[in-house]
Amino acid sequence: MAALEHLIDALRKLPGVGPKSAQRMAYHLLQHDRGGAAQLAAGLQEALAQVQTCTRCQGFAEAPVCDVCLDTQRDPALLCVVETPADQAVIERSGSYRGYYFVLGGRISPLDGRGPREVGAEALLARADDGQVREVILATSFTAEGEATAYLLGEALKARGLSVSRLARGVPIGAELEYVDLGTLAHALADRR
Amino acid sequence: MAALEHLIDALRKLPGVGPKSAQRMAYHLLQHDRGGAAQLAAGLQEALAQVQTCTRCQGFAEAPVCDVCLDTQRDPALLCVVETPADQAVIERSGSYRGYYFVLGGRISPLDGRGPREVGAEALLARADDGQVREVILATSFTAEGEATAYLLGEALKARGLSVSRLARGVPIGAELEYVDLGTLAHALADRR
Repeated sequence: MAALEHLIDALRKLPGVGPKSAQRMAYHLLQHDRGGAAQLAAGLQEALAQVQTCTRCQGFAEAPVCDVCLDTQRDPALLCVVETPADQAVIERSGSYRGYYFVLGGRISPLDGRGPREVGAEALLARADDGQVREVILATSFTAEGEATAYLLGEALKARGLSVSRLARGVPIGAELEYVDLGTLAHALADRR
Repeated sequence: MAALEHLIDALRKLPGVGPKSAQRMAYHLLQHDRGGAAQLAAGLQEALAQVQTCTRCQGFAEAPVCDVCLDTQRDPALLCVVETPADQAVIERSGSYRGYYFVLGGRISPLDGRGPREVGAEALLARADDGQVREVILATSFTAEGEATAYLLGEALKARGLSVSRLARGVPIGAELEYVDLGTLAHALADRR
């Protein structure tokens, strides 16, 4: 059946969904949850129509400038650089940051043809040059690519006289020392306080 | 952002998708695959509009009667009873069955208020009474509920003079005996050939 096959193909666009899961989802929706299927179609269309890129921070927005960038209660001296809107959301949920953000288009990855230009380094430098930002917190991942991204961006930001910091590395809350990897432990020892 | 939250909620309607996965899917679609999101919305709407229930076998159809029921090359003496359209699809893909099907609305489960009426026992008996069906293959699951469903339907079909069979139980292809559960092994020994 063509319509069923099209739906299974489309469900495979979801990250982490392979052919078996896509088939199970399609059958489930059509047999047991047509209301849910209609809700999902509407949700996708609403999000595609409403969610755009914030012209100031490049994060998600439902207007030309996002709610965070429009929030005048935040500290304009602090700019936190993240790789994705999802990373921005998790920092917001932590409730411990009251500055502004800049959302990169991922991390620098020369093998995938993604250099500073592709992740938006120029737009970041322009944003950080607003005269109010004093410290840029580079909250990219602690992976090889995330570290390289932080290094390259950090050098460019320092050259403009901005203070640059990185999230602290250490033992996660709730972790048992026995199971913490050696690299993390070495950093936690070096940065002890 | 309301549109993003609505999309995350809607993605949770998919089986096996929890809050974390739904969030990851929403961010991925909006940031990296808006084309895929549009394709999924269209696929859902197409399937909801096109896929209906076959009036003859109660399986999925894109017309009042499905392609399988309309296929005159099949053996009208054989009727295979399955729990879901997904089970029908897997038997079709095995390529080893050339009769017709009847798709139940799940399995009998008194605790969930699903008796013979709810799974479509009456419609099955009416379908099996067409004067051509001689053998009904009860291909329900080999779970307690699937077995109970097969037993109840089997008794009613036998009372109408129809021959009733069940899929063979045994060791799956590719399995190492050491890891086969004891119940399966007991059945495989009893039904040895």
